[in-house]
Amino acid sequence: MDDQQITIARIYLVGSSGRLSMDNMPYRGAVQIQSVTEEDPSIPLYVSDSANTATSMATGGITSPTRISTTAGTDQTLVTIMEMARGSGMQTGIVTTASLTDATPASFGAHINQRTCQGPENMVGLQRLGGREVMTDCSHYLKRNGGPGSISEQLAASSIDILLGGGSEFFDQASEQEPSMTVSDAARLNGYQIVRSTTELLELDADSKILGLFAPSTLPVRLQGEGNAVAVKIERVSGEVVLPEPFSCAPNPAFDGTPDLGTMTEIALERFDRSKSFVLMIESASIDKQSHARRPCGSIGEVEQLNEALDIAIQYAQVNPETLVLVTADHSHAAQLSSPDGGLLSQNFASPGHFARIRTPEGGLMGVNYATNDSPLAEYHTGSQIPIYGFGEEVDMLPSFLLQKEIFSIMVEKLGLVE
Amino acid sequence: MDDQQITIARIYLVGSSGRLSMDNMPYRGAVQIQSVTEEDPSIPLYVSDSANTATSMATGGITSPTRISTTAGTDQTLVTIMEMARGSGMQTGIVTTASLTDATPASFGAHINQRTCQGPENMVGLQRLGGREVMTDCSHYLKRNGGPGSISEQLAASSIDILLGGGSEFFDQASEQEPSMTVSDAARLNGYQIVRSTTELLELDADSKILGLFAPSTLPVRLQGEGNAVAVKIERVSGEVVLPEPFSCAPNPAFDGTPDLGTMTEIALERFDRSKSFVLMIESASIDKQSHARRPCGSIGEVEQLNEALDIAIQYAQVNPETLVLVTADHSHAAQLSSPDGGLLSQNFASPGHFARIRTPEGGLMGVNYATNDSPLAEYHTGSQIPIYGFGEEVDMLPSFLLQKEIFSIMVEKLGLVE
Repeated sequence: MDDQQITIARIYLVGSSGRLSMDNMPYRGAVQIQSVTEEDPSIPLYVSDSANTATSMATGGITSPTRISTTAGTDQTLVTIMEMARGSGMQTGIVTTASLTDATPASFGAHINQRTCQGPENMVGLQRLGGREVMTDCSHYLKRNGGPGSISEQLAASSIDILLGGGSEFFDQASEQEPSMTVSDAARLNGYQIVRSTTELLELDADSKILGLFAPSTLPVRLQGEGNAVAVKIERVSGEVVLPEPFSCAPNPAFDGTPDLGTMTEIALERFDRSKSFVLMIESASIDKQSHARRPCGSIGEVEQLNEALDIAIQYAQVNPETLVLVTADHSHAAQLSSPDGGLLSQNFASPGHFARIRTPEGGLMGVNYATNDSPLAEYHTGSQIPIYGFGEEVDMLPSFLLQKEIFSIMVEKLGLVE
Repeated sequence: MDDQQITIARIYLVGSSGRLSMDNMPYRGAVQIQSVTEEDPSIPLYVSDSANTATSMATGGITSPTRISTTAGTDQTLVTIMEMARGSGMQTGIVTTASLTDATPASFGAHINQRTCQGPENMVGLQRLGGREVMTDCSHYLKRNGGPGSISEQLAASSIDILLGGGSEFFDQASEQEPSMTVSDAARLNGYQIVRSTTELLELDADSKILGLFAPSTLPVRLQGEGNAVAVKIERVSGEVVLPEPFSCAPNPAFDGTPDLGTMTEIALERFDRSKSFVLMIESASIDKQSHARRPCGSIGEVEQLNEALDIAIQYAQVNPETLVLVTADHSHAAQLSSPDGGLLSQNFASPGHFARIRTPEGGLMGVNYATNDSPLAEYHTGSQIPIYGFGEEVDMLPSFLLQKEIFSIMVEKLGLVE
């Protein structure tokens, strides 16, 4: 999520003179991401993935892409804020619209050398990542090799109080060393109450750790283009640019029954004992995933979900003023808010990438351009600094610019932990 | 200038863990731009040009692209902060690396229906704009029709104390109604001392209005790609992507002798009477212009110039603590900090636009992608929210999010003027 994506969502959701919930937060800064190459960790990389950027926030470390809270090259474990908080008797939780085993939540709850090692069956060989296949080797993390197992196994064995998101396909795999038992069985033995629907989520017992698995992998998104319209390559007919038909955003029928991010956030906050500190990581994951897929309405709906979750967090913080609420992103992305007709330069020129024209509720026409990549499969991230917003007593002290790893330091200081 | 451009410049100039001068400013917010169509000013436009966005900052109004401090559709004059300040006996100045007649400075110093009407010879017919030609009709602004004349004529007739930048080609045209006299002659009659070189600038008399014209149009930029390298279309040979050769940035020989933005800023600040208030608009114009031209090193060098000018402004404000320093942009742009090799998605895919790979001084490789447009001539702006930074006693009161026209209100309030 970056300034382009936020502006696209603002214009669609509340109009160009409106304000998103995050626009009302009193603190706003910019965050420089940092990454290094796996082969030589002294060489900087400027465009990162969610694994290494979430690792920076979760651990204060700088690592290479696809690594989950482990060091580049040397494969050492980086201690997470969740582990530090738990070690001091605090409560912890992860809420996400992605699979709980996906890069961002995984970086807060596990340690492994590759993000693709999401379940016991995914530890070696070609594994899916964003519609492609990535050569994977996490064999030294296998339990039979003395390791802690895959990401789902590590989460199932964890002491994180609340885990809500997608990813049942990785928890329903057989445990590596006890094939008669699934990873979710192991989670149950470790004290997790497991819920798989909104109904079950709303009927939870009060006193247990909870593991919510509401989809095989990523949760369905709330919005899609009318008629499932997405950004497309612009065609020329007899040499003339033919701009794609404008569309509006519409509800995604597949979202029906999916718990929304606000509901999951509310339940997580209700379950925490207010007499004790907590760390809760809440992710609207498909702002990114729908940008990879060139689906502007998908990303807009997920910014809306983020804002709803934020409203609930802010309400909580208003009643519990010792709460610090931070909103930020892993990294910036491909989508650009563009002129629907090429703007002042329009002389039969158009985007060389994938392009959508969106009809806005206030009566305008918004171009969204995706052109980092000519792959038919997916756009890729960009390397811009990203926003950070804050609400809470400490925000007057926060700097206007920071390195991503310093977000970890802010949390450590807020919680009174020792790095 | 936007987060992408700032990050590209930070990484090249000070490294990915370094800080630009603007990163040290205590206040950072985000600004939503606003524009409307000329035909129906009730219809919003989301991607704007520097004319209407600078008009928002200079006047608090919202107008259509290419308009200079006049209203969309109805062509009414919008009063500028410079006129209001002058009306209250304050001092005013404009410093830019563009032509003084270009959209941003023009919006602070003139009123006209089209930005292309830069000199008396440019009032009707096809006029140049960014390497293209734009149909222009400012005939009702001609002096013979009772108007105030072209942008250069309006500036020459103005009471702005300091005008430093480029644009001699528009001031050396014959005056519309006195062909024996140029526009710069008229400026001299109006009390302007005219300087055309750094030497002359440094030898100025103390007591006069000054008009500095240091290039026919835009001033030369400080940096360019080694061997004048720019972003290029990526080729495929036998179906395989061939990424362009990486390059570093190098001094632009054409910049020699050009006054830099810091020097112009310093001279402007020195000339103001410290016992009286002032408004000084300082623009590093070619961050934008070099992005249109797909020249990443050009933009980087101009962010460097902006930071040097900012250092001088901050030093001034530290000694004169009643000073408010704001840094912002007209609008966001095409350039994206991208993976130099396609990142995790690299499977023989690459940017469909123009692409450069830049060797950074800290030993990394930075991709810069330009892909808003398949025109051979120029990229176009994007519509993202843009940064605003601040230094001064008031910055604790500034909001984390604002509409662009509210920048005008901040200046009005600071100066104690009445809207």
